[in-house]
Amino acid sequence: MRHHLAAAVALALGLASIPAFAAQDKPTPSAKEILAASQPSEWRTPDPDNLLYMQLPAGRVVIELAPDFTPLHAANIRTLVRGHYFDGLSINRVQDNFVAQWDDPESDGDRPDPKKLKPLGRAQRTLPPEYTRAIDPKLPWTPLPDGDVYAPEAGFVEGFPAARDPATGREWLTHCYGAVGVARDIAPDSGNGSSLYAVIGQAPRALDRNLAIAGRVLEGMPLLSSLPRGPAPMGFYTRASQRVPILSVRLASELPPAQRADIRVLRTDSATFAKLVEAKRNRRDAFYTVPAGKVNLCSIDIPVRDGGKPVIP
Amino acid sequence: MRHHLAAAVALALGLASIPAFAAQDKPTPSAKEILAASQPSEWRTPDPDNLLYMQLPAGRVVIELAPDFTPLHAANIRTLVRGHYFDGLSINRVQDNFVAQWDDPESDGDRPDPKKLKPLGRAQRTLPPEYTRAIDPKLPWTPLPDGDVYAPEAGFVEGFPAARDPATGREWLTHCYGAVGVARDIAPDSGNGSSLYAVIGQAPRALDRNLAIAGRVLEGMPLLSSLPRGPAPMGFYTRASQRVPILSVRLASELPPAQRADIRVLRTDSATFAKLVEAKRNRRDAFYTVPAGKVNLCSIDIPVRDGGKPVIP
Repeated sequence: MRHHLAAAVALALGLASIPAFAAQDKPTPSAKEILAASQPSEWRTPDPDNLLYMQLPAGRVVIELAPDFTPLHAANIRTLVRGHYFDGLSINRVQDNFVAQWDDPESDGDRPDPKKLKPLGRAQRTLPPEYTRAIDPKLPWTPLPDGDVYAPEAGFVEGFPAARDPATGREWLTHCYGAVGVARDIAPDSGNGSSLYAVIGQAPRALDRNLAIAGRVLEGMPLLSSLPRGPAPMGFYTRASQRVPILSVRLASELPPAQRADIRVLRTDSATFAKLVEAKRNRRDAFYTVPAGKVNLCSIDIPVRDGGKPVIP
Repeated sequence: MRHHLAAAVALALGLASIPAFAAQDKPTPSAKEILAASQPSEWRTPDPDNLLYMQLPAGRVVIELAPDFTPLHAANIRTLVRGHYFDGLSINRVQDNFVAQWDDPESDGDRPDPKKLKPLGRAQRTLPPEYTRAIDPKLPWTPLPDGDVYAPEAGFVEGFPAARDPATGREWLTHCYGAVGVARDIAPDSGNGSSLYAVIGQAPRALDRNLAIAGRVLEGMPLLSSLPRGPAPMGFYTRASQRVPILSVRLASELPPAQRADIRVLRTDSATFAKLVEAKRNRRDAFYTVPAGKVNLCSIDIPVRDGGKPVIP
């Protein structure tokens, strides 16, 4: 009783007043412990039409598209993938603490030669931007309680970190670690999904609402984040031999079910996810003596399992 | 005049109402343009007693110590460096989107054998934590205007991203990209600077006030951030051959002046730095049509020059 009172007083006074964690105190459960108690129904299986397998020499990157936010881009990327557009292209730019970008290497530079570009096939050349969308009350929204530097509200929609502005009625996906964005030229409609980037560093949130986010990497981030940084401005590689070849990109739905990975993603509107967020906000154990008391949108990992095994974030 | 009025009205209504950037509008200057107009007096030369050169096989990492925040750790690290303690040790842990850590590989694991550990020489085995310090009004404080999820105030002190809480009178360095922290065991005084880590991903701000920050990487972050991630839990390498050897660590002050790098860091209390922050908050040009209007502490690069050339962040 004495301990509880002390804790309540400490909360009223601010975190610095919380007493040191004592041996008899119950530590905040670890993410592993929280996940071990999760229910199968709290995990969703992404639609195979929204899952991309990008095969690199070192392994496979799995990306989930976000058609509720960027439907035209999702459709165009599916068309490109089905036409094997990405096969034989490469990762051409890795800028430290920013992004890894893959596309047709002939498209890089100020004045690409149109005759050398790989044809887009049946895919659209331009697309409406899809940077933001009208808030849809039917999509499950899991708000975070601690505010956000960049947006009036931050939280999760269907497994994606997102932000919204009730004043404008708009919501948008955010450039957190692992976000897959649509590169473009100056014109807002010049992105079409044939050039994509993944965030590999501190969340560049100033890009929010200026670029379309097509999806999010579920598995294989280290294959992108640990690539050598390019020596040219913006992290472009300068020699063809530095580029990382893309062996193939396929939709999970293109493969026979037996060849698809069994990928499950923890629902961001589940009780277990709420427990993870709270444990992150107020982790308190023998090591963490001062809980943050807060958590930032882009600091929350969304757990993924592949074949029943945790994907190490 | 009409344009200025429109902009003022847009600001009052919220960012979404700002009119599209037009060809006749003046774009926000780039960081390169702002830096080109900087004055020599706005750049400081770090004290050679605070500069560490860590030589890896692939190149050199330069770290600036922060003795105004962690003086006992700075002194102990200097003692370790002068005793060549780090020479022949290695980077033993690289966890994706978190940290790269270097130390005596024999110290890893749950029960290291004390007899196998490299002796610390004249350095202290334990140190007071130095997680926070009393706010010193004599240290130049450059506050940021947009708030912070984790702390009542965020800004820069002497070139380091930092946070403070006027209610407790404490300030502390923050775990932004490139921060160099002091690894420790459970006991708060068990860190001594012989095991260090650098942040290589989204800022893990929940570590703030729970670990001492000894300094910050000024140059060579890609040499740490692009290393292969370790396959074991927490990113530890599992084989000795995976470890990245540290050839040597030296203080700049140990070298003859002619052999020292000419490193300059833009003063965070300079007019040019203020312009960079403002340009980052409200970047507006033909590409960025919706300025963020805000900036997060850990999203601001602190410019560094080596031999007069910009260190590419």
